[in-house]
Amino acid sequence: AIGPPIRVSAEDGSTAASARTPARANPPPSRYLPRPFDTIAILVENKFGVLSRVAGLFSARGYNIESLSVGETLDPSVSRMTLVVRGDAFIIEQVIKQLHKLIDVIKVTDLSEEDHVEREMLLLKVNAEPASRAEILRIADIFRAKVVDVTPTTYTLEVTGEEGKIEAIIDLLRPFGIQEIVRTGKVAVARSPKNRVRKVAERLGKRPGGPPRPQPQG
Amino acid sequence: AIGPPIRVSAEDGSTAASARTPARANPPPSRYLPRPFDTIAILVENKFGVLSRVAGLFSARGYNIESLSVGETLDPSVSRMTLVVRGDAFIIEQVIKQLHKLIDVIKVTDLSEEDHVEREMLLLKVNAEPASRAEILRIADIFRAKVVDVTPTTYTLEVTGEEGKIEAIIDLLRPFGIQEIVRTGKVAVARSPKNRVRKVAERLGKRPGGPPRPQPQG
Repeated sequence: AIGPPIRVSAEDGSTAASARTPARANPPPSRYLPRPFDTIAILVENKFGVLSRVAGLFSARGYNIESLSVGETLDPSVSRMTLVVRGDAFIIEQVIKQLHKLIDVIKVTDLSEEDHVEREMLLLKVNAEPASRAEILRIADIFRAKVVDVTPTTYTLEVTGEEGKIEAIIDLLRPFGIQEIVRTGKVAVARSPKNRVRKVAERLGKRPGGPPRPQPQG
Repeated sequence: AIGPPIRVSAEDGSTAASARTPARANPPPSRYLPRPFDTIAILVENKFGVLSRVAGLFSARGYNIESLSVGETLDPSVSRMTLVVRGDAFIIEQVIKQLHKLIDVIKVTDLSEEDHVEREMLLLKVNAEPASRAEILRIADIFRAKVVDVTPTTYTLEVTGEEGKIEAIIDLLRPFGIQEIVRTGKVAVARSPKNRVRKVAERLGKRPGGPPRPQPQG
């Protein structure tokens, strides 16, 4: 079988199966099972037009980009894009192949194939009348949110975490009256080199320092 | 001439896009002075193709997008994009006018015109050998960074803040050997209703509740 041409992150040395994706631990019946979300990291030359061409590749296929972050890297001439896209794994493969052909694309990594850390940040402006200020601060405290702006009637909070945490604080603060929310797209980095250790062990049919992990059900 | 983007760190005082920038306190002699950075918030319908069209508007003018974040809002059918672009204020105005004409664009706000809170998030993977782990954690502590992943030889830190703070922690950790950095684009929310109060006062030629702010030198 011809595998997808997913280039590999330098630290990692392999496109490791993610410990968080049980479907990958047990090979699915078809390679092209629909997956809820894919997180793709793309290193691109920091030139005008690149973003538009990358986005165009997805939209030409009727493919929605759920979230996107573009930021600088250590090299000012290189930007890193993190995209979250949703849909059929076959189409994702096609898009990744075509991304590789774009002249300003340096490297494409499908992070969903690897164990990775995923985070996003939320700025949230919520009504904070005197009667509710204490409770809002208690919630902020539990979520380790920072208050980044205060007015007599509002708080603006900054909170980071995985999607579930972000959704949870939004739900908790909704009753107070949320005036505005701004979310960065997700960003992600591969976990390594723990990853490599685990892979070798898996190839040998055992986990390092212990019995094999129980297989996920379903 | 379109050159590679010049990276300016906040410490050298030249990132003038934010409302904290003293340059905004006094209106410039011309409306069309080149400004180093503009932060633009765009509410768009969450449909495929929108991102590509918005990015295309900028790239068609040879306009580089320095950073970009796209995330959900409270309404799942609406996304919010935060763009940081650099250049001539005249062109920015033209682009904003044309953004308004795009069918899926709901609202465009040039946040540089308003007092606003601006934040970005950084994930940073740094070499952490036993001898340097304590010092790295001290630096993380000072910057209120969270350790989100640990291996025997690396730490992955998450830190949020303004550009200057992000640049500062990168510079401090560089000597240890940074393996990877991922930055979200900037996100920003307008400060209000303090904002409204100040704007009215400025129109009347004075600042609320006090003498004019001292003007910055240089």
